[in-house]
Amino acid sequence: MSYKEMSKEALQKELEQLKAEYSEICEKDVQLDMSRGKPGADQLDLSMGLFDVFQSTSDLKSENGLDCRNYGLLDGLPEAKRMMAEIMDVKPENVIIYGNSSLNIMYDTVARSYAEGVMGSTPWCKLDQVKWLCPVPGYDRHFAVTEHFGIEMINVPLLEDGPDMDMVEKLVSEDASIKGIWCIPKYSNPTGTVYSEEVVNRMAALKPAAEDFRIYWDNAYVVHHLYEDNQAQIPNILEECEKAGNPDMVYEFASTSKVTFPGVGVAAMATSEANVKSIKAQMTVQTIGHDKINQLRHYRYFKNFDGVKAHMMKHAALLRPKFQAVLDKLESDLRDADIATWTNPVGGYFISLNVMDGCAKKVVQMCKDAGMVLTGAGATFPYGKDPKDSNIRIAPSFPTPKELEQASEILVVCVKIATIEKMLEA
Amino acid sequence: MSYKEMSKEALQKELEQLKAEYSEICEKDVQLDMSRGKPGADQLDLSMGLFDVFQSTSDLKSENGLDCRNYGLLDGLPEAKRMMAEIMDVKPENVIIYGNSSLNIMYDTVARSYAEGVMGSTPWCKLDQVKWLCPVPGYDRHFAVTEHFGIEMINVPLLEDGPDMDMVEKLVSEDASIKGIWCIPKYSNPTGTVYSEEVVNRMAALKPAAEDFRIYWDNAYVVHHLYEDNQAQIPNILEECEKAGNPDMVYEFASTSKVTFPGVGVAAMATSEANVKSIKAQMTVQTIGHDKINQLRHYRYFKNFDGVKAHMMKHAALLRPKFQAVLDKLESDLRDADIATWTNPVGGYFISLNVMDGCAKKVVQMCKDAGMVLTGAGATFPYGKDPKDSNIRIAPSFPTPKELEQASEILVVCVKIATIEKMLEA
Repeated sequence: MSYKEMSKEALQKELEQLKAEYSEICEKDVQLDMSRGKPGADQLDLSMGLFDVFQSTSDLKSENGLDCRNYGLLDGLPEAKRMMAEIMDVKPENVIIYGNSSLNIMYDTVARSYAEGVMGSTPWCKLDQVKWLCPVPGYDRHFAVTEHFGIEMINVPLLEDGPDMDMVEKLVSEDASIKGIWCIPKYSNPTGTVYSEEVVNRMAALKPAAEDFRIYWDNAYVVHHLYEDNQAQIPNILEECEKAGNPDMVYEFASTSKVTFPGVGVAAMATSEANVKSIKAQMTVQTIGHDKINQLRHYRYFKNFDGVKAHMMKHAALLRPKFQAVLDKLESDLRDADIATWTNPVGGYFISLNVMDGCAKKVVQMCKDAGMVLTGAGATFPYGKDPKDSNIRIAPSFPTPKELEQASEILVVCVKIATIEKMLEA
Repeated sequence: MSYKEMSKEALQKELEQLKAEYSEICEKDVQLDMSRGKPGADQLDLSMGLFDVFQSTSDLKSENGLDCRNYGLLDGLPEAKRMMAEIMDVKPENVIIYGNSSLNIMYDTVARSYAEGVMGSTPWCKLDQVKWLCPVPGYDRHFAVTEHFGIEMINVPLLEDGPDMDMVEKLVSEDASIKGIWCIPKYSNPTGTVYSEEVVNRMAALKPAAEDFRIYWDNAYVVHHLYEDNQAQIPNILEECEKAGNPDMVYEFASTSKVTFPGVGVAAMATSEANVKSIKAQMTVQTIGHDKINQLRHYRYFKNFDGVKAHMMKHAALLRPKFQAVLDKLESDLRDADIATWTNPVGGYFISLNVMDGCAKKVVQMCKDAGMVLTGAGATFPYGKDPKDSNIRIAPSFPTPKELEQASEILVVCVKIATIEKMLEA
């Protein structure tokens, strides 16, 4: 029965019962962490073969004859470029291989623009104001990067098919201080949103007032499908930008962090050859080169893109029941009460839960008090401020399925309590 | 016989003979690269055991119980901190473990200071002028970093026992726009200079006009001795700075790049706990963490500092004959002619050769034309400008001993020709 249709007395009775349940939960020694999109140990086990790729007798030469054990090759092995190009559906000449983290590439890219500008533009540190568009809810670590450099972040609603493009088009064309937009086009963090073809095309066709405006296209979940037969495909943003006469307007990012091991993989950027040239001029000052042996290790392990795709389906098989456990509980316990909405993603790492306005912080706090850590309420918005205090990010990948049942139970009890208390306040 | 004592005619005759030799050399298909301090393949072979440390059945847990295959731990594994602390002779709590390159740490450190200042100081990008002290000859990649950020570099003579401290003390205490100094305190690149105890102590006791002045102490060759029984020891700069009341004034850098594999190792910074805290606040925005498995791999391979030291003696055994081959040739062919001076280092990767003023560029060009690439003349000075055009950096590590004989032969012929031509010009 919908809570909205219940009498005050009925709600109070329900509340008492829920509080008793919550007390019971709190007495158990619960220790659960659903705060971050961390792969589970079972997922990590999938990639242990990486450690058998090389032995002390191995040939560590790249296909171009380079000894990967020594200095050299700023932008990555040819085979690593090809592998990351296939993953991102771009050409190898558009790829720069970096170190172990795509977040680090994004930070570097903003830092470079801040210190030296973008292909000859005024460095952002010399400007009075730099602004950024942030589709919300979004990824907290993106927002932390732009906040770190004093960039003013503007919330843009993330709709069912991507960012509100009417708003994006208007703002970007009118305000030359807007220099970028964070996008996670496939299985967006935290909503699982897949940008539609129309959104991608409109994004590629933007007419920014700022010549140094760039789309930060974080394709973090590019091959991170949950199903074999329901896989999102989105247009190639590099191609679309080129067609639209904006060849240099996009930086695309991806990594193998959630393919093999987080922080132990290969990260890459894909962008126009003009951007590549400009970026390499800075990179050559920053480093002699990244870990080529790890690049070679990954390439030899997967052999080709089919190897990557097959590997991702093994991840999917482990992740599906975890997502399902949470979704089942939300469905069974919250649907009838009609007090929350949530996403049902076909890829990525998160379920996005929207509770009654003004209740998210309270829910997260109650869960924490019961021993279960969620991503901080507000974290999915710039400056950690969810204007409605409504969005909660659920990361079901790390706990075991058994732990997830317990976690979901705690979550729904807390959502119900916070909602009824809010309703009774009114 | 000293060239200075030879008649013009005798010099001309000598020149003809040398040119004939040079022509013969040029007809051979020589292809030699002595441009960078790259370990030889034989040195890289020493560390192949790294690939046997882990197999698919290995336990990848850190001593603190952390699964190194997953996200987490911004500043490095405890055992990696301990290992790098022992190498640098500091305490583990002073260490931050980074990625694969200490150059990258130095770049990041300058970049951070440029964008956000140093522990609360005005960001350098907001200042009209930032200056830097550069002991010369020095490391070209250091100078490239400061040049990249528009920092004005001031040459400071590197004397036999370290930088000219009279000059350093005067400049640093008088000019608040001087924010740093590049130092390679042990087996300096390219001279092999070891800073004396007095120099280290005076460095630690500087009274800089700028509160955000920092010593960039690049201990790149900290364990890179050439001899078992002739190993430089220098005072611990962190301790000395603390004693002198300047606990936050130094950043120390080191890596395993020339211990195991260049670009595939572990790099670290050591600095005061206050600096560590301030740096970590920025790092947490920049990355989730570096490659912990590679940290664990290195730790398990070496086990302890004795393991590192024993390993370095294997490098030394391979490097000594290479250095000796070059030194012998310089001695036999240039000593009597009295037309050059050179260093005879007991560690590090380079021999520094000073030819007659105005001859270095010509020598390097002639070597290049004969098929042998040296570090560009001038590279050992800021802006690539050697005021005397005299210094040449020789990197004997990469070629085979046989190649080094050939290389040394080419080098001395070119030095002689350039010198005589210069003398005859006058």
